[in-house]
Amino acid sequence: MKTRQCIITLLTDFGTEDGYVGAMKGVLLNSIPDVSIVDITHNIQPFNYRQAAFSLMNYAFYFPAGTIHLALVDPGVGTGRDCLILKTSDYYFIGPNNGIFSYILHTTGYRAFRIRTELFGSKVSPTFHGRDIFAPAAVRILKGESPDKFSQPLEHLTSFYESFDDLEDDEYRLKVIHVDHFGNLIVNFTLSDWKTLGSPPDVRAQINHSFIYGIKRTFAEAAVDQLLLTWDSRGFLQLAQNCGNAARTLNMKAGDHIVLKVSHSREKEP
Amino acid sequence: MKTRQCIITLLTDFGTEDGYVGAMKGVLLNSIPDVSIVDITHNIQPFNYRQAAFSLMNYAFYFPAGTIHLALVDPGVGTGRDCLILKTSDYYFIGPNNGIFSYILHTTGYRAFRIRTELFGSKVSPTFHGRDIFAPAAVRILKGESPDKFSQPLEHLTSFYESFDDLEDDEYRLKVIHVDHFGNLIVNFTLSDWKTLGSPPDVRAQINHSFIYGIKRTFAEAAVDQLLLTWDSRGFLQLAQNCGNAARTLNMKAGDHIVLKVSHSREKEP
Amino acid sequence: MKTRQCIITLLTDFGTEDGYVGAMKGVLLNSIPDVSIVDITHNIQPFNYRQAAFSLMNYAFYFPAGTIHLALVDPGVGTGRDCLILKTSDYYFIGPNNGIFSYILHTTGYRAFRIRTELFGSKVSPTFHGRDIFAPAAVRILKGESPDKFSQPLEHLTSFYESFDDLEDDEYRLKVIHVDHFGNLIVNFTLSDWKTLGSPPDVRAQINHSFIYGIKRTFAEAAVDQLLLTWDSRGFLQLAQNCGNAARTLNMKAGDHIVLKVSHSREKEP
Repeated sequence: MKTRQCIITLLTDFGTEDGYVGAMKGVLLNSIPDVSIVDITHNIQPFNYRQAAFSLMNYAFYFPAGTIHLALVDPGVGTGRDCLILKTSDYYFIGPNNGIFSYILHTTGYRAFRIRTELFGSKVSPTFHGRDIFAPAAVRILKGESPDKFSQPLEHLTSFYESFDDLEDDEYRLKVIHVDHFGNLIVNFTLSDWKTLGSPPDVRAQINHSFIYGIKRTFAEAAVDQLLLTWDSRGFLQLAQNCGNAARTLNMKAGDHIVLKVSHSREKEP
Repeated sequence: MKTRQCIITLLTDFGTEDGYVGAMKGVLLNSIPDVSIVDITHNIQPFNYRQAAFSLMNYAFYFPAGTIHLALVDPGVGTGRDCLILKTSDYYFIGPNNGIFSYILHTTGYRAFRIRTELFGSKVSPTFHGRDIFAPAAVRILKGESPDKFSQPLEHLTSFYESFDDLEDDEYRLKVIHVDHFGNLIVNFTLSDWKTLGSPPDVRAQINHSFIYGIKRTFAEAAVDQLLLTWDSRGFLQLAQNCGNAARTLNMKAGDHIVLKVSHSREKEP
Repeated sequence: MKTRQCIITLLTDFGTEDGYVGAMKGVLLNSIPDVSIVDITHNIQPFNYRQAAFSLMNYAFYFPAGTIHLALVDPGVGTGRDCLILKTSDYYFIGPNNGIFSYILHTTGYRAFRIRTELFGSKVSPTFHGRDIFAPAAVRILKGESPDKFSQPLEHLTSFYESFDDLEDDEYRLKVIHVDHFGNLIVNFTLSDWKTLGSPPDVRAQINHSFIYGIKRTFAEAAVDQLLLTWDSRGFLQLAQNCGNAARTLNMKAGDHIVLKVSHSREKEP
């Protein structure tokens, strides 16, 4: 009989230097000796669950079925916010109900549960649910318990997923939803959106008073230090700089906007 | 027969980018193929063994019995400082004898050994005991060797554990012993200290000329950006800022002091 | 029959916060359930394959035979640069052919292969070969496939390995090839180079208009904050500062030079 793999991924904004993540790893290993704990990151900016939400989508679906994804960026720890379990066809997602799973909810079917935290004993720290509630909940699932035993169906799920705005004359207002490690500015417009628009051959992005023309296949199709548009590795449009940091160069950040103009007849770049 | 779990945790100030930690992992895996190496952190501030000492306490005791905790923040590498093995009822702690185990020593019983470094061969680098002495010592213990074979009892253990100062009129001078990733300022006063004082209902912290009243249960009981006192997840008092960074806001750091005044009759906040 | 160990080490400049490394881990675990993924670092400075090249040498050879070392610092992703497999007597190295393996090539014998990326399907992202080509290539090797099946011999290997310059009168011009986490400035002159010169007892380094005399065995042989020369843990000469950060103190960086003067008759330090 093949042993079921026990994989838990960890994404947090805890940093590692205080041993908070270490405590969670201890709790997990103490309960499930053969668990594989996979560090995704502990460097999410403090409290930035939007950054976490985007990152989640970059890795979650590459893991083997059965994997439990813990995602803990939780400024509301100890308040009334719910502790969430999301069951999709292949995975469990566990974390606070603050929008951290916005993109997952948008991408796949799911069943949602609210953890009954009162069942997790009297010694729960009100400031460290990661160690005292979320990790133990993951353990119970990995041990084969049904979420029904310690959670109940949840109706209202927090999500901040946002489509791009349709302006006029083939213009669209796009929002920077993520700035990655290399300073690439990723916006809420995908390859599939582009196809829905009829795959317009001409695309022009306006940032303040500058323009970027065309969508390149690779960074290197632009000159060194030149700004460009390209599809990121998940099919989102990104504003990048070859061998540079677009966010720094343009002084832009998540939440900022750019205007995209598409055209169905090929125009010449001026 | 159940296989004994082989877990080694790693805490260092090495950073990861030079491959120094990688070298240690290689040494461990080369000797013990089924070892589980658990990264705690490699981001301790260079040489800051006080930060490391506090962090250790946050995770060490959550791990399965038999775990070996390596803790290497070692500005004195290559000097006369001893290489230490600490055996507690459940764990081994291995690292330099520079105070990095101060809180562990204060918390639990132990036997202490000095590693006989001369037994570790002629190729020991005087600047990298982590790779050439500490990791190999962990290997020998995991392989079942008694520490007696390559170490000898050690009497003098370095510790910087410090109690708070009792001033007068129910006032106490507390020291910031740790600043965590979120900027929480943790002081040397615990929930158990508070109970020893008779659980005084009124507590007031003075920082320079400002006051903070009461101990809150969660961050969210304070308004956003408000400073508060609360117990950290191990029962230490901390000065925090809801959704903010108290250390940055107050421009305070480890080693700074605050004055705590307690009162046994409930006073009104002015 | 002993199970073959499956170890893959990861060194990248991806950071961890976007989940790009997470995606690679998912791909690896999905294909090889019992793989051991060893994080070396994800904090290489963006695009700095020279830093990566030096770090590689610090850990690669400590791992068990059979280990696959993935090293991905790849500013040229999506361009014509080749995807490289290097087979040495004990290891596989996989990464871009941009010089990241310069020190490995200099250190050991090898056979080199160019990955035939066109065999990796039509869904390869032009900006994320780590997930879509390099990790899958590692999987194929770990599953026992010969590199011949998906790669072909490669002649031209990029390398930037550089010897020190021989000036005159026992003077040598050394280049800073690496600055480590502690600010140690490591130069292209080794213990073995020194022996080749006849182990001259007197050594003097000139940095701008300052001099440092002698090679110390340990940091602590210098006073606190004093600059010193010593051998690093792999036998390279380094310019360091006891309990300090030499790079910051001297405002020096990789690529800078120092002049080393040796003398075969012991002179007095002035």
